[in-house]
Amino acid sequence: MAVEILGKVPVGISNRHIHLSKQDLETLFGEGYQLTIRNDLSQTGQYAAEETLTIEGPKAPLLNVRILGPTRKETQVEISRTDSFALGVKPPVRDSGHLKDTPGITLVGPQGKIELQRGVIIAQRHIHMTEAEAEQFGVKDKDLVSVRVGGERGGVVFHNVLIRVRDDFVLEMHIDTDEANAAILSNGQLVEVFR
Amino acid sequence: MAVEILGKVPVGISNRHIHLSKQDLETLFGEGYQLTIRNDLSQTGQYAAEETLTIEGPKAPLLNVRILGPTRKETQVEISRTDSFALGVKPPVRDSGHLKDTPGITLVGPQGKIELQRGVIIAQRHIHMTEAEAEQFGVKDKDLVSVRVGGERGGVVFHNVLIRVRDDFVLEMHIDTDEANAAILSNGQLVEVFR
Repeated sequence: MAVEILGKVPVGISNRHIHLSKQDLETLFGEGYQLTIRNDLSQTGQYAAEETLTIEGPKAPLLNVRILGPTRKETQVEISRTDSFALGVKPPVRDSGHLKDTPGITLVGPQGKIELQRGVIIAQRHIHMTEAEAEQFGVKDKDLVSVRVGGERGGVVFHNVLIRVRDDFVLEMHIDTDEANAAILSNGQLVEVFR
Repeated sequence: MAVEILGKVPVGISNRHIHLSKQDLETLFGEGYQLTIRNDLSQTGQYAAEETLTIEGPKAPLLNVRILGPTRKETQVEISRTDSFALGVKPPVRDSGHLKDTPGITLVGPQGKIELQRGVIIAQRHIHMTEAEAEQFGVKDKDLVSVRVGGERGGVVFHNVLIRVRDDFVLEMHIDTDEANAAILSNGQLVEVFR
């Protein structure tokens, strides 16, 4: 049970959000529509858009859910487990883009509505890093590591944190609002990576 | 770093709730008012009441917040960190009844309103057990232990879980909705206690 400390990473907390395909964007907002950048996110090229959507669940809707840009190959809805109870859906915990056998949901925009056949997930917690950082940490893409959080709630450890390596990534651990609130974490707070 | 497994306990998830003093109950519902039992809770003598209140935070209200009975010496409002952001208050993480330097809030009932001077907390996760169970587990009242959760999200460990021993307690780990959702836990699920 010897613990090997690999390094520290800042936390980025993901609130519920939607990635849209180009086609779905046009169905919801009109032909040729382009998203408006509201603010850049820490990951290179990623941004929060001015535009939001309503997610219509079987139980209740969630209003004003932020769209993140740019558009992607397939539409993906990332919610917390708290949100999943409010909406009345049962998404699995998944790495981004792994949408096989995930539930669909209804998205409502100003110009149209989409009955998504799949794409709702609870995002698996993960750490973005570059190749150089992966070398420093002694990990590689798809490795699973553990993360220790100190602070007011007195210690939470998240195991099975997915390492994602790409040279345009910025070092950051992404967790959702449930995980952040359970561990009383704030954006930018440093957590310790170990295995 | 040798880990000593102490035993397993079922989880009980606490949603936001309010404990009222007799005096505050009467201010909110009228003189001589008695709570109506909706359902018994697992801890002996404790129950969820039919009655609910509105919590008025500086930012937004939370409606229909359940009252738990019987009445206590001092009114106490237990919310999750998610709730604290919605309300716009900053409660500390505290063991039940330890209300020194906690923020107040406004409670609204059908017959009156209370400007609570203190009493809002995020409950510290804890395990209820009897003296006999404490002996079995090899722990004593106020000890801090760790708890490991398996399951879909692939492993979360909560450190600094408070042991609370009393002979009318029923073996159960109490956590709030943020902690339960971060670890994808359900009521009654068994978790492993260690130190």
